[in-house]
Amino acid sequence: MNRTVYVNGEYLPEEAAKISVFDRGFLMADAVYEVTSVLDGRLIDFAGHVARLERSLGELDMANPVTAEELLAIHRELVTRNALTDGLIYLQVSRGSSGDRDFIFPDPARVPSTIVLFTQSKPGLCDNPQAATGLKVISIPDIRWGRRDIKTVQLLYPSMGKMMAQKAGCDDAWLVADGFVTEGTSNNAYIVRNGTIVTRDLSHDILHGITRSAVLRFAREAQMTVEERPFTIAEARGADEAFITSASAFVLPVVDIDGAAIGPGVPGPVARRLREIYLEESRKTAI
Amino acid sequence: MNRTVYVNGEYLPEEAAKISVFDRGFLMADAVYEVTSVLDGRLIDFAGHVARLERSLGELDMANPVTAEELLAIHRELVTRNALTDGLIYLQVSRGSSGDRDFIFPDPARVPSTIVLFTQSKPGLCDNPQAATGLKVISIPDIRWGRRDIKTVQLLYPSMGKMMAQKAGCDDAWLVADGFVTEGTSNNAYIVRNGTIVTRDLSHDILHGITRSAVLRFAREAQMTVEERPFTIAEARGADEAFITSASAFVLPVVDIDGAAIGPGVPGPVARRLREIYLEESRKTAI
Repeated sequence: MNRTVYVNGEYLPEEAAKISVFDRGFLMADAVYEVTSVLDGRLIDFAGHVARLERSLGELDMANPVTAEELLAIHRELVTRNALTDGLIYLQVSRGSSGDRDFIFPDPARVPSTIVLFTQSKPGLCDNPQAATGLKVISIPDIRWGRRDIKTVQLLYPSMGKMMAQKAGCDDAWLVADGFVTEGTSNNAYIVRNGTIVTRDLSHDILHGITRSAVLRFAREAQMTVEERPFTIAEARGADEAFITSASAFVLPVVDIDGAAIGPGVPGPVARRLREIYLEESRKTAI
Repeated sequence: MNRTVYVNGEYLPEEAAKISVFDRGFLMADAVYEVTSVLDGRLIDFAGHVARLERSLGELDMANPVTAEELLAIHRELVTRNALTDGLIYLQVSRGSSGDRDFIFPDPARVPSTIVLFTQSKPGLCDNPQAATGLKVISIPDIRWGRRDIKTVQLLYPSMGKMMAQKAGCDDAWLVADGFVTEGTSNNAYIVRNGTIVTRDLSHDILHGITRSAVLRFAREAQMTVEERPFTIAEARGADEAFITSASAFVLPVVDIDGAAIGPGVPGPVARRLREIYLEESRKTAI
């Protein structure tokens, strides 16, 4: 590979894309991120990702090192330099490096935030074969910190959850807190019962998914009924359908939870229809 | 400054101490750490830190890139190269960089762990004036993840807690979950009632402090009574004394919680005595 990576104002060969060992993103997970999908060389839901980045930074009193316009220019420059057709652009902002380690936040006037962006080429991103087969998930306890609405890089447990799923021969894990599903390891979780789409309401407990927001809007515009409330694994196992949404997976059906088939055990019509609508509509607004 | 920093087998000028932006320590907080105190150029409780590092790595299925002997040699080399008399040695091991981002753990046979060590000079480390004045702490909700026994770099909330304490004109925060104190942001928490030392019992809820272990052993050897059980902020506010322990603070008295003086509002005899014993005994076994 010979990707170009963006690091603090420079476009570098990926081997040269480095940060200080004193960066707070490395020492203290003091960093937030976004992942934007690219289809046909254009950015999907870009405004939503920029808005959420600004919210995450604000919640952590972290300075934004770039304007929204600069961010768009960097994304487009990376698409061009890496000849990206279909794939992802990963963006991370950390609180930077004061040149030493201290729990106390450094003065942002003296220590600028670190910003890193890189691309991941994913040919066929929107033709994921899992859209036809569906995902199998396991349920695991949700032991993450209490501010999952802030998109921090504290991804160790989600990563462990993916490993647990892989060991169980499954694709992902749904996280359960106090008896109710919060979300998937890197996506929002949904069930469909009697034509009604059920997904957990927004709070500090879950990520405020950009794709979630768009999909729920499209669902309501298509006269589907949406209930935003918590649901249990038992309710999910008795549902007609299940699915997940994320910026990189769009909408993917879930056909099995903890070894039990959901409905007939094949992707359902609501998930299929929402995937179609989402891809069609979000391509229209891609920039 | 012109410290020498250790990065993956190399001793580098601190400005050149860098890691890949693809390192999982930076992208996913997939890393663990230890901090060892140095007094008079010798390592305090070194065996304990090595044992805990190995436990943390084991809990995360992460490979240890060095043996205990190599680790000791690196610590000593850094003490020498940086002419460190009193201070800290920080050690971090991450799951390394596969050259890209993926939730799934990379194959450790192909992707070695990243190891970084650096020193922090702290002249007068054992003569901290806070030993005479005592600390003021606030209480805040403990919203960290559920495996605080693994010493990961997911330190964003502890860092936020230190900032909340600073804004309140205090020195630190005690974290409270389900009504009981778990620990301080970077230390274990204790109270003393009628001569009995009370500190939370070991579990996934708290760090298994190396200094905690040593201090409790010394306390028992000195015929003090120790109760390992949870306590509330209300019980702490009604206690005769309070204190904290950590590898860098050793034993420090706490004299105020949420604006209320503990006992007479000055450091108590138990904390003072335990600090003396700990410093005396740990210097004897320093290497």
